[in-house]
Amino acid sequence: MLKNWAPEERPEKEEIKERLKAASQKLYELQMKIKEHKLPVLVLFEGWGASGKGSSIGKVIKNIDPRFFKVATMSAPTEEELRRPFLYRYFKQIPEAGKFTFLDSGWMEQTCKDCLDGLKGEAYAKRIDSIKRFERQLTDNGYLVLKFFMEIDKEEQTRRMNALLDSKDTDWRVAEFDRWQNEHYKKCRKIFDKYLTDTNTSTAPWYIIDATDKKWAELQILETMVSNIEVAMQNSGHSTPLLQNVFPLVKMPKLSEIELEGKEISDEDYKAELKQLQKKLGELHNRLYRKRIPVIITYEGWDAAGKGGNIKRITEALDPRGFEVHPIASPEPHEKSRHYLWRFWTRLPKDGHIAIFDRTWYGRVMVERLEGFCSENDWKRAYNEMNEFEKELSDWGAVIIKFWVQIDKDTQLARFTDRQNNPEKQWKITDEDWRNREKWDAYEGAINEMLTKTSTVYAPWYILESVDKKYARIKALKIVIEQLEKALK
Amino acid sequence: MLKNWAPEERPEKEEIKERLKAASQKLYELQMKIKEHKLPVLVLFEGWGASGKGSSIGKVIKNIDPRFFKVATMSAPTEEELRRPFLYRYFKQIPEAGKFTFLDSGWMEQTCKDCLDGLKGEAYAKRIDSIKRFERQLTDNGYLVLKFFMEIDKEEQTRRMNALLDSKDTDWRVAEFDRWQNEHYKKCRKIFDKYLTDTNTSTAPWYIIDATDKKWAELQILETMVSNIEVAMQNSGHSTPLLQNVFPLVKMPKLSEIELEGKEISDEDYKAELKQLQKKLGELHNRLYRKRIPVIITYEGWDAAGKGGNIKRITEALDPRGFEVHPIASPEPHEKSRHYLWRFWTRLPKDGHIAIFDRTWYGRVMVERLEGFCSENDWKRAYNEMNEFEKELSDWGAVIIKFWVQIDKDTQLARFTDRQNNPEKQWKITDEDWRNREKWDAYEGAINEMLTKTSTVYAPWYILESVDKKYARIKALKIVIEQLEKALK
Repeated sequence: MLKNWAPEERPEKEEIKERLKAASQKLYELQMKIKEHKLPVLVLFEGWGASGKGSSIGKVIKNIDPRFFKVATMSAPTEEELRRPFLYRYFKQIPEAGKFTFLDSGWMEQTCKDCLDGLKGEAYAKRIDSIKRFERQLTDNGYLVLKFFMEIDKEEQTRRMNALLDSKDTDWRVAEFDRWQNEHYKKCRKIFDKYLTDTNTSTAPWYIIDATDKKWAELQILETMVSNIEVAMQNSGHSTPLLQNVFPLVKMPKLSEIELEGKEISDEDYKAELKQLQKKLGELHNRLYRKRIPVIITYEGWDAAGKGGNIKRITEALDPRGFEVHPIASPEPHEKSRHYLWRFWTRLPKDGHIAIFDRTWYGRVMVERLEGFCSENDWKRAYNEMNEFEKELSDWGAVIIKFWVQIDKDTQLARFTDRQNNPEKQWKITDEDWRNREKWDAYEGAINEMLTKTSTVYAPWYILESVDKKYARIKALKIVIEQLEKALK
Repeated sequence: MLKNWAPEERPEKEEIKERLKAASQKLYELQMKIKEHKLPVLVLFEGWGASGKGSSIGKVIKNIDPRFFKVATMSAPTEEELRRPFLYRYFKQIPEAGKFTFLDSGWMEQTCKDCLDGLKGEAYAKRIDSIKRFERQLTDNGYLVLKFFMEIDKEEQTRRMNALLDSKDTDWRVAEFDRWQNEHYKKCRKIFDKYLTDTNTSTAPWYIIDATDKKWAELQILETMVSNIEVAMQNSGHSTPLLQNVFPLVKMPKLSEIELEGKEISDEDYKAELKQLQKKLGELHNRLYRKRIPVIITYEGWDAAGKGGNIKRITEALDPRGFEVHPIASPEPHEKSRHYLWRFWTRLPKDGHIAIFDRTWYGRVMVERLEGFCSENDWKRAYNEMNEFEKELSDWGAVIIKFWVQIDKDTQLARFTDRQNNPEKQWKITDEDWRNREKWDAYEGAINEMLTKTSTVYAPWYILESVDKKYARIKALKIVIEQLEKALK
């Protein structure tokens, strides 16, 4: 078993009682401070069947105001969830700033079940990597992640199950998997131990709770929560050192090096090509659907570069039951109070579907960076976080196509002026657009850095030269078709 | 093989040449910045025999001024090194601030060799934990740790070895282990892969270098170094979030709760007990020596609390060939420019020996904290770092006994005044002692926090009430004897 954490010996009953009182009181006091510090706390309970995960959560939450916590019970994944990346249903559950989420089993139980069903080797290693990155992204972003493993031995488990099975009122509480576990205790033990060792990281370590005695288990949990919340509050507002890059990058040109002149197409050629390419894309969409390959197409670009029209030429070709377009504006309060990737995780397509993002997570290193909506450390860390996010999607099997729609400053001015002067287009132009335009140079610097640092071999950026919007549309269609054909091979 | 890092495909010869030139130039420029930023860089080369570890180091250092780097070649551990914790010989080699250390194989090769000799299960897991903590402590303290694994396949290894063996001038370069490795390539592959996966952490990830082509290998190394030095410089001066505590703690009293009155002993009893206890300790020392158990006894306490005399009563009982006393003053420049635990790592006893530290690493959370000799983040992080350090020593098999020598403020004043007025004792009192005395309350707070956070079950603190120095001496001897007897059981 995991050896880095050995709880002390169980104290006398009286001592447990006294310390329980103190720890409960302390946790009660801390909840307001958590609110003040905007600390999000994720508490994961894993462990043996009948070890008391649920009842432990029940006892802990008695010390917390119901407005400040949420309990999530993870039953078997739904059909909808199975068609998304493994972490999807867990990422969805992460708490808001200042609140607790308690999880009654989660990605550990699921992974160990998958191991029993044959998950191993490279696929297992990838899973572990995903989980470690998920937990680390949370702690890097100021989350406290507390992981408890409720430990009982085989005899104790048998005893508890029999007690539950003895009565018609309680026998439903013994799940079939619990029974199976008890019969194959040794086999499960081995898988649990390996998982605990493999995911015992410095920023989200495991706490093995001796759950043989219920009061003693409660005390270990409460005291661990209290002491770690105190540590986490010392870290609040703290920035996190940047990580070394481990993703192979594709060399990108600077924006100023992109030749825009001559990137044009005649109306006639455009019409002919568009028709032919859209037909091709429509066919590919059907094949993708049958092969259940997820596709993520993202658009970033200057204001008035022609993103909307470009997206339209893609979607025209697609079966409306198989795609979704997500226009991304500034985050709403419930989104802002979570990890910034949460609103993208929750918008991922099902496999076989296409999700098109009109603006994306890259807002973090453009507008959020330049307008000071996040800290310097936040956006500097984000390059790696987004590479990790996309690696997750790519490992899931997704095709990721990232477009930068490029125009020059003069073209933008002409289009802005045209919008301003044209009553039908006036809704498309705001004061903010003009303000952003004033910061062109700062944006250009940020965009260059973004393209350099996030064009990975598995999710590269593509430049769409869009002074002639038709040219850009044809180019986009060709790239999408090419990448989908590659994926379908 | 480790999958999170997949280098790009090997480019054309011409491109390699060009990029090599650029990367060399860049590294050359960066060395002065490293100096300015006081960044210490540890570069570890591991990999297959004949994969070109040594020659790669040779090429890299051509770009660096010889004053700024050191190359350490790790041959088989000496007898002296084998009698110390596994990490000892590696911790010794860590670079100074602003400099590089290149290691031609290190803790990976040694661990994999040990695996071939049967290291497995819990012992292997502990080793991995040690290594991960070692690397993380370095990166937490601002070190850049770059880990390269030089990858060639079996055929390439055979080809290279045969070429070397063909000539009398080069055949010495093929070590016996390399030959063995080639014959058992698959077995070694498995062990290497497991190690790489187990130690691939976010703050010190592995870079698998495709070493089939030498120029291409050099380019991968140089570019990885350059880009990661740039990341590390952005982190310089950056603080690191505190970690959750994973060590079981023993509850300690506050200093103000310690009863000092009545803790005394008559001269007669003292003499009798001292004689008997010292005799006992002397015997135990012999048994420890034969059983090769290392012992570490540390002293902290108020000025004039009686540490020196207390230590003397211990050492009087010991065989002088089997112990060493380390008086710890403020660090020298070459110590200050390394991880603050470096000067303690390098002073560890051999197994079977006793090391007594008169003041210790706990200076970090007392004088260094209160005088501002380190940053707030440094001392806040130190509690956990010291718990980890002592866990390392405890896992190695060491008995760790930590004394806090306690007196009250009046007793200190009386002793200071006595020293001042007594010409023979005047050397023992300095202006600094008086200045420290003025900060009594601040020290008391820091000491209480230290005792609370670092009294682990495997390395607890013991309080020595020392208003009557004789009482404290007898108590210390009794505790040492008791703990040694426990270890000898």
